[in-house]
Amino acid sequence: MAKNKKITLLIKNIGQLVTMQGQVPRRGKDLADIGLIENGAVAVSGDEIVAVGNSDEIAGKVDLAENHTVISAENQVVTPGLIDPHTHPVFAQTREMEFEMRLAGKGYMEIAEAGGGIRSSVRSLREAEPDELYARARKTVNTLMAYGVTSIEAKSGYGLSTEAEIKSLEVIARLNENEAMDLYPTFLGAHEVPDEYRDRHEEYVDLVINEMIPAVAERKLALFCDVFCEDGVFTVDESRRILQAAEKHGMRSKIHADELKSTGGAELAAELGALSADHLVYISPKGIDLLAKANTVAVLLPGTSFALGLNEAAPAREMIDKGVIVSLSTDCNPGSSMTESLPMIISLAALKLKMTAAESLAAVTVNAACAIGRGDTLGRLESGLTADITIWDMKDYRELPYHYGVNMVKMVVKNGKVVVGR
Amino acid sequence: MAKNKKITLLIKNIGQLVTMQGQVPRRGKDLADIGLIENGAVAVSGDEIVAVGNSDEIAGKVDLAENHTVISAENQVVTPGLIDPHTHPVFAQTREMEFEMRLAGKGYMEIAEAGGGIRSSVRSLREAEPDELYARARKTVNTLMAYGVTSIEAKSGYGLSTEAEIKSLEVIARLNENEAMDLYPTFLGAHEVPDEYRDRHEEYVDLVINEMIPAVAERKLALFCDVFCEDGVFTVDESRRILQAAEKHGMRSKIHADELKSTGGAELAAELGALSADHLVYISPKGIDLLAKANTVAVLLPGTSFALGLNEAAPAREMIDKGVIVSLSTDCNPGSSMTESLPMIISLAALKLKMTAAESLAAVTVNAACAIGRGDTLGRLESGLTADITIWDMKDYRELPYHYGVNMVKMVVKNGKVVVGR
Repeated sequence: MAKNKKITLLIKNIGQLVTMQGQVPRRGKDLADIGLIENGAVAVSGDEIVAVGNSDEIAGKVDLAENHTVISAENQVVTPGLIDPHTHPVFAQTREMEFEMRLAGKGYMEIAEAGGGIRSSVRSLREAEPDELYARARKTVNTLMAYGVTSIEAKSGYGLSTEAEIKSLEVIARLNENEAMDLYPTFLGAHEVPDEYRDRHEEYVDLVINEMIPAVAERKLALFCDVFCEDGVFTVDESRRILQAAEKHGMRSKIHADELKSTGGAELAAELGALSADHLVYISPKGIDLLAKANTVAVLLPGTSFALGLNEAAPAREMIDKGVIVSLSTDCNPGSSMTESLPMIISLAALKLKMTAAESLAAVTVNAACAIGRGDTLGRLESGLTADITIWDMKDYRELPYHYGVNMVKMVVKNGKVVVGR
Repeated sequence: MAKNKKITLLIKNIGQLVTMQGQVPRRGKDLADIGLIENGAVAVSGDEIVAVGNSDEIAGKVDLAENHTVISAENQVVTPGLIDPHTHPVFAQTREMEFEMRLAGKGYMEIAEAGGGIRSSVRSLREAEPDELYARARKTVNTLMAYGVTSIEAKSGYGLSTEAEIKSLEVIARLNENEAMDLYPTFLGAHEVPDEYRDRHEEYVDLVINEMIPAVAERKLALFCDVFCEDGVFTVDESRRILQAAEKHGMRSKIHADELKSTGGAELAAELGALSADHLVYISPKGIDLLAKANTVAVLLPGTSFALGLNEAAPAREMIDKGVIVSLSTDCNPGSSMTESLPMIISLAALKLKMTAAESLAAVTVNAACAIGRGDTLGRLESGLTADITIWDMKDYRELPYHYGVNMVKMVVKNGKVVVGR
């Protein structure tokens, strides 16, 4: 234990403590090694973890600060705060009408003609006041946290104009400043081609490269840049140009890859050394081999197929077996996956991707931390790391996928402070 | 409005009020008619609804009691309190180990040999103290309520001895007395054949008929009797004998029917005039025709197939089109569907059964009330009925299936009192 550090928060008598100590990132069989300690404890000083281990050993040794909190977590599970590495939290309106039309067999065009689809999100976001967007996104972000998440990646992408993309990223910056959640912002101007550029596709790519990226970079509004690389949206070549331009401005790459068909998105992610390649429902065998050798994190989004009523799923078992760094996310967005529950995604990962509870926990902690470039400080309970911790009302961590659709979070600790379940 | 009734609770300015006024029960196209009122209000006196209608009209007229509560529900949806007509809430232990084994491809026998399966629930329930069972079931029941449910059907069935079945039903009776939830108890001694009768199947049927049913009836512990009618469990003939014996003791019939294959359970339900036939994944065309003419409610349980990792689903659209009375339930139980979220089931009903939000709402209110024999007093917001009401944090009721895996309940009113979200 670090000397001279006064303990401000002590969580002791933990039924099952999931430390995630070990490899960063975690691949293959290491994914199942979650560093389990029975009767564990975590000692925190300020926003830093200073000791993790056996409860009897730690509780006897700590030097408690004058103002301190002690939590006794018998029959409970404690994990690192979950990390959601792929969300679209800034939007103006939900799209429940479209969900019902889709289930009734209506096609993309019919839905678009009825005012649905991503373009409806673009229209409403452009019209919305920043305060209105902030109020809605705040609710989304705090709901994510109520379900055990302490950090998220947060994308723009419903603006599709320099002004509206900046408006979205400024909402994310304000949330980051005011809310307990840490948001890692991603510029996603290349989410779709807006209506006014429908016949001038190339010009929109130029706008993203020559105007949007420099404007976002100048304002320091994004750590990452993402592109929707898919047939009919942005080609592999366009995606490469956009991401390379963003890299020059200091933004690391993320790619919406191989979601609807195999288009070479995973291959591009490996080529560029992207931070993550996301979706990957139709990743090619070559894409798997390339990602297995890369440090790119494969962020799988089983909630999206689920909520679109599709049976297809990313080949998670093959990816894990071959050594790809696998993570999971809600894809929280109003079009294809309206949920703030990462535990729900863990249930879907079990049922649809055949991932065990241990693998999914590693996916949403240590590996998700790597997908936001914070594998060094987040996603594990280890001395010296950030004190982001989730306490669960369950005796065994395997209850997480099994007990589905309900919130089992007991408490959330963010930067050493109890922020949910006080 | 009923004269001289002082209003103790007024819910006004309701964005969308789903009254469910109309047919009881609801079949075919009527299932989609949910009695929607924009800017609605509900006035309650004690535990009784006394007025439902336009907010401006009602709010101006009511005579408020000295002690009263006024709730303004702008931008919110108000529905009848949901009713869950099929739950197994009394058990001693969760079975998350088994869930993971099943997803890893382990078969029924392997799981049973590792200490899993329904027999593990029987072993642990028999050993458990009533207080221990009560504490666990209380949590389950209150979680169901936190997700918007105000009445449940609650089964025994993990005891499989006269003593342990009575112990389970007594726990249900105690919950009914002490908790806000109303529980409608069902005796399910014929859930499985216990180990000690494995080679004496017929003797167990006789025990259920000659000893358990009279003992349960004498103690007035159950309103309904249920049988697991399935190949390898109880045959159609055995199920008929058991249910007829129970009917003689005043218990109405329910049947676990056609869950794993088509065995004639739906036909038996129609023949007996059962209150409900549940599961029905493999209902025969003849079974559908017979139920369409009967007053038996078809209780569909899409969460069970989902959580077992199966793709099969009850033919809900065909059943609705032919006029079967369709309801939905969690099947909340530790073996095959560990969830207390009926809204999650509404999402699954949309995605797997292609039921619209309106149809699902009718299924879990007016039709579910019929499945527990209370179509006259529950499941609708209508003058003279019980004031069981759920207030939802959403602008449009269609958000219910679409916004999946999270709790959108704002408040629950049970017998006229706010019990969740105070």
